Amino acid sequence: MRLTLSEPRYLKDSVSIISDLVNEARFKITPEAVELVAMDPANVAMVIFKLLSTTFSEYDVKGATELAINLTNLKMILKRAKPEDVVTLELSTDNKLTVLLQGNTTRTFSIPIIDVEEKEQKIPDLSFTATVRTKSSIFNEAIEDAEIVAESVSLLGTPERFTVVAEGDMSKARVDIDKNAATDILVKAASVKSKYSIEYLKMMMAASKLADNVDIHFSKDYPLRLDYKVVDKLLLSFILAPRVEND
Amino acid sequence: MRLTLSEPRYLKDSVSIISDLVNEARFKITPEAVELVAMDPANVAMVIFKLLSTTFSEYDVKGATELAINLTNLKMILKRAKPEDVVTLELSTDNKLTVLLQGNTTRTFSIPIIDVEEKEQKIPDLSFTATVRTKSSIFNEAIEDAEIVAESVSLLGTPERFTVVAEGDMSKARVDIDKNAATDILVKAASVKSKYSIEYLKMMMAASKLADNVDIHFSKDYPLRLDYKVVDKLLLSFILAPRVEND
Amino acid sequence: MRLTLSEPRYLKDSVSIISDLVNEARFKITPEAVELVAMDPANVAMVIFKLLSTTFSEYDVKGATELAINLTNLKMILKRAKPEDVVTLELSTDNKLTVLLQGNTTRTFSIPIIDVEEKEQKIPDLSFTATVRTKSSIFNEAIEDAEIVAESVSLLGTPERFTVVAEGDMSKARVDIDKNAATDILVKAASVKSKYSIEYLKMMMAASKLADNVDIHFSKDYPLRLDYKVVDKLLLSFILAPRVEND
Repeated sequence: MRLTLSEPRYLKDSVSIISDLVNEARFKITPEAVELVAMDPANVAMVIFKLLSTTFSEYDVKGATELAINLTNLKMILKRAKPEDVVTLELSTDNKLTVLLQGNTTRTFSIPIIDVEEKEQKIPDLSFTATVRTKSSIFNEAIEDAEIVAESVSLLGTPERFTVVAEGDMSKARVDIDKNAATDILVKAASVKSKYSIEYLKMMMAASKLADNVDIHFSKDYPLRLDYKVVDKLLLSFILAPRVEND
Repeated sequence: MRLTLSEPRYLKDSVSIISDLVNEARFKITPEAVELVAMDPANVAMVIFKLLSTTFSEYDVKGATELAINLTNLKMILKRAKPEDVVTLELSTDNKLTVLLQGNTTRTFSIPIIDVEEKEQKIPDLSFTATVRTKSSIFNEAIEDAEIVAESVSLLGTPERFTVVAEGDMSKARVDIDKNAATDILVKAASVKSKYSIEYLKMMMAASKLADNVDIHFSKDYPLRLDYKVVDKLLLSFILAPRVEND
Repeated sequence: MRLTLSEPRYLKDSVSIISDLVNEARFKITPEAVELVAMDPANVAMVIFKLLSTTFSEYDVKGATELAINLTNLKMILKRAKPEDVVTLELSTDNKLTVLLQGNTTRTFSIPIIDVEEKEQKIPDLSFTATVRTKSSIFNEAIEDAEIVAESVSLLGTPERFTVVAEGDMSKARVDIDKNAATDILVKAASVKSKYSIEYLKMMMAASKLADNVDIHFSKDYPLRLDYKVVDKLLLSFILAPRVEND
């Protein structure tokens, strides 16, 4: 196996974001893509990551390989890659993952392959009443607005408007995002509302540095799915359990 | 009551500065201005704030209203206003203050009106021996210079020179600011000197982000008054009790 | 004694770097230069500093003077100097060091001359097997790469390649720097290797802000010497004891 990236940021930023949710995870490397599906330790959030082979300048993979590593270790190494560095991932003979950063100098890091006992995660088959596509910066700001008054946020969809509402002990915040050039809304109900943890949303929203738009899918008291996509390059999706009203 | 600001920074920066000195305060809203006079909890400093109606793009106030709120809450909301956002303040029917931020999206915050038991503060009638007008950046730097050697600073005025002096256990600092194009000095004595807390001065000096100049008024062992003004827009003044020599 | 600097950064940055290694130190001021040789309190590192008289716009020194001061105090004062300030050092009659910063205003700081009991440090006469001259940024990055896996680093020299290697409990890092336009290597052996503390190296590497290149001298299990030079202005050198393999 030998994978080379000329634009390290897709892997670097993705690993950095994912490592905030899951510390250790198993990558599945197939001739089509590098993939990862993992639950956070609290079983509240799932992350689904796919980095397509077309993102790589060299992609030499025969058959499917599984590779579990400590994401914090990998993140720290990838952080050392400068934007112009060429990054190569290899499996070394002593069962380590070798990360080569090539620029002015050649830097070689090796990190151990670990055992992850966790069984393979299935991506749940969800069907949503509300789908909103908007700029990831607009969604980020709405959640950051909500954060100053509360720890959880209600997402509210109607056919013409997507609303983010938070109620603290004292103060309230409400962000109204209307259907317009920047925001597409598809809600198959008069109104749909569900509540989620802001702490988790903030970890997920960091994916806005990778993709300009986000697809937000939700239903009444039902999981949320956020999709961040870069065409022909990557998909970074998150599923987040709802907070029930008596939280 | 409905007040709209097209340049939110005058309110935003003022509230941020004031909230470092007083946590809860009562605004008085008259047809001429939004005003606030408050003492800090330690009774060492007073803040006097006036935001003129001419600063607002819409100023719909009938009669005088009093409105006490938690300034930290208001600060956090105003911090969410981007420079290009239009900010509107309204009293809602359920006795809350509504803050609307309008830009790409419409964001509505509401914070409770609170009861502040404190009696109305009178602005003391002070008369000063020394008055110095200088760039607020020059005054800031002098206080920051003093801060590296001590916790209090003596201001010393003579007809031709304004001097900031600090003496620590070991080291001393002295900043001489001469009368010149940037600095105007009026001292009605051969020499006048008084000592103040640097910690408080630093909270007040933050008003330099609003006004290029500061008027510094003091007398021997007497309160200090700092005035930061933006013509036709705002006044932010502070009165600070002196430190007596045996502090 | 009266010393004036029009470019304060050579003294400012040097004192800032040195003060991380030694808190109190004795300067020797001769007609040729301001010099300092000091050991860190743990006796692991030595710093050798020479600021040539040609760096100063005014250099009035008769005979040799010794002058011990608290470097943290001096650092804090020099940090207050803006790049365009003229900095003057004088000995005042009450046995204090006076630091004048002249810009818009005149700022005068005085700090006490202290007694340092420590005997005069002799610079050890070392002879090295390996000498590498490279860009200080390249050396910095190699040490920062090593830092993410371990607390100490091995420097490895061969006639054609300088290698920085670190081994943590789990991960490894290796940076290969080949002889080329940016890097000159002189190794008088087939191979030479020695191990040093990354914590100390990082304090020393801060000198990269003063000099574009660094001369790295080492031998097998022997002290390291780093030289940062600015021609006709300054020398900032560090000697660091090796870590023996059973560290």
